[in-house]
Order: sequence, then C-alpha cells, then structure tokens
Amino acid sequence: MSAPDRESALLSGDKLELKLWLRLLTCSSLIEAEVRARLRETFATSLPRFDLLAQLDRAPVGLTMGELSSRLMVSNGNVTGLTDALVREGLVSREPEPEDRRSLRIRLTETGKRSFDAMTPTHEQWIDRMMAGLSRAEMAHLLELLGKLKQSVRSAAGAA
Amino acid sequence: MSAPDRESALLSGDKLELKLWLRLLTCSSLIEAEVRARLRETFATSLPRFDLLAQLDRAPVGLTMGELSSRLMVSNGNVTGLTDALVREGLVSREPEPEDRRSLRIRLTETGKRSFDAMTPTHEQWIDRMMAGLSRAEMAHLLELLGKLKQSVRSAAGAA
Repeated sequence: MSAPDRESALLSGDKLELKLWLRLLTCSSLIEAEVRARLRETFATSLPRFDLLAQLDRAPVGLTMGELSSRLMVSNGNVTGLTDALVREGLVSREPEPEDRRSLRIRLTETGKRSFDAMTPTHEQWIDRMMAGLSRAEMAHLLELLGKLKQSVRSAAGAA
Repeated sequence: MSAPDRESALLSGDKLELKLWLRLLTCSSLIEAEVRARLRETFATSLPRFDLLAQLDRAPVGLTMGELSSRLMVSNGNVTGLTDALVREGLVSREPEPEDRRSLRIRLTETGKRSFDAMTPTHEQWIDRMMAGLSRAEMAHLLELLGKLKQSVRSAAGAA
C-alpha cells in the first residue's frame, strides 16, 4: 500500500516516543521533499533560498546574519554562501550596521520582494493541499500538541 | 524567552496550514539537531550512519539498496557512499542477490550489530527526555494526528 519509510520496520513493542519521533520525521521529510521538488519545477529555485526570502519578507527592518541563521536553524556559513548568491542576483541587500560595522544587515530588495510575492500564493496552495485531509479542529489540535513538544524539546536540549 | 526559529515572524493573520508546517519543521529540526550533536559527541558517529544501521537492524534478511534509500527517504547515490564507508569499516556487508546479480543486498555484520546495540539505549533515552513534557495520552494523540497528516501528504503528493 504505502511507500516504505523510517517507520516501516517498527515493531509493535517499540516505544511510543520512538514511534512519535520517526513519524514526525517522516511527515516533515515528506512535506519538505514535495516543496523542494515543486519549487524547483515551478520556480527553478531551491528550498533554502525560498526560506531565506520568507524570513526577510517578515522582517521589515531586515535581519542580521546571526538572526537569519538562528531563524533558519542553519550555520552562519550556510547563510553566508546563500546570501552571497542572492546579493549578486539583486534579490537582497547586505549593508554594515551603522553602529557596529562588523555586523551585517540583510534586507529584501524591491526585486527580491516581487520575486518572493510571485511565489507565495502557489506555495500556500501546495501546503494547503497537503493538509487537506485534516479538519480545522484537527489542525488546531496538532498545532497545540506540537507547541507542547517544541517546549519539551527545548527544555531537554537546554536551549534558551 | 525562547530562541527565534522559523515560526518567530509569523503573523496572527497567517494561515493555520502554514503555521502547522513551520511548527512541524521546527520540532523535527530541533530534535534532529540535538540527536545529531549527541551522536557526534557521545559515539563519534553521524545521523545518516545511525539511521542506516537502525534500518538494517530491523531487517533480518537485510535490504536492497533501493529499499534502504526508500526507507531513509534519501537518494540512491547518498546511500551508496555511506554504504561504501560502512563496508570498509566492517559494519555492514554488501552481496549480489543470488537471483539478480545486478541487485545488491546490504546486511548488518556481527560487528555492526554490536556497534548499533551499544548506541540504542542511550539514543532512546535522548528521545524519551525530549518528549518528557508530553503525557502518554498526548503522545498517543499526536501520533494519531501525525498519522492522518502523513496520509494526507501522501495522497496530495501522489505517492503510492
């Protein structure tokens, strides 16, 4: 029936926590793979680029490199390479902070904003369709339980 | 308060589906980053290696390369490189199938099995602790809702 994934070989005696983690990973991997493939096919762009533009689109005064990498949960080095490419293409600007010239602030340019705005309605449709099997109440409940999980993981991982 | 992540800049008017996707991605990224860091610190190993050994540990007759890459949801190329390294280290074996010599079957060796068994109790503890903020009932409900989501994503993505 369904394609094999990380959960397939779990045994009935396996722990609930492990099942939950593998199912969570399966869900996010499936959605991510789908969004990645569609971004490439439809807009000839990559998921890291889309994610970076999305974060900047929601930051009216822009973001420092550190803020960007924290929000994207990737290393500073990854953000630097990606930003280099987007600066060259004119989609984002990168300027030293007036009060601390070692710190760089990234902003979406007008071109970058137009490029991102052209993709968002389609991107939202993809996400909507992938979640269409859940009722609004189920989505709200899932959001709440994932909120609890996020807190639980953060406190176990000792993150601030 | 909490570290900024992909959800941080969401607006109250944003759609439930988008919120859900970003929260799901945040949860799985947080757990994955934690497991990755701990595997490196505690066992000097990587998450892809651990995942591959885990899949083989649950497959008594081994897995073909195709089965492995499907379960790990990564490309065949990635699995090949990883398998090469594990064969060299004597943790897995790779033999042609008797009835189809173009197909390769991967199995855990005795050494591989011992190496994996030495890591699993600790790995389970990490996962348990990260989920300790949820009750058994909440975990069971979350598992159920993620099961619905998985089906919904698979049917929207047209996957078998």
